[in-house]
Amino acid sequence: MIWLIVGISAAVLTTFSFIPQVTKIIKTRSASDISLTTLLQLSCGVFLWALYGLHIKDVIIIIANSVMLATLITAIFLYFKYRHK
Amino acid sequence: MIWLIVGISAAVLTTFSFIPQVTKIIKTRSASDISLTTLLQLSCGVFLWALYGLHIKDVIIIIANSVMLATLITAIFLYFKYRHK
Repeated sequence: MIWLIVGISAAVLTTFSFIPQVTKIIKTRSASDISLTTLLQLSCGVFLWALYGLHIKDVIIIIANSVMLATLITAIFLYFKYRHK
Repeated sequence: MIWLIVGISAAVLTTFSFIPQVTKIIKTRSASDISLTTLLQLSCGVFLWALYGLHIKDVIIIIANSVMLATLITAIFLYFKYRHK
């Protein structure tokens, strides 16, 4: 039971980890310190994790990585909008 | 075989995803646009993943998340050093 909670907490924390970054870029309208390489590399990684989840038919892996991919794509869009400000 | 490559690529890309961010902070000496909440939340998440990996005795999960935690701790240290510059 304790390990189920550890696993779920780990998944929830990592899945929603880029929401504070997205919120900060929107508030400050600035993104020049953020590494585009990190955003792109992490996006490719979670996209492949989601594909892998489809392959092994694991709904948690599919959902967690798809949600994280969506927030990362939002961060990339905002990076290009605000990188020079 | 193809799915093994997909899984390994996903793990390698995500594990080393914060190295470009760490490099960028060191080069620019600036970190004010980065969300500390994102760094802390992701650190807690990968720490719990590493614990979970210890529980299920999965060496890949332990190593991948420990390496990512080390780069995230480096990024947090650099954030406090350069956040006002």
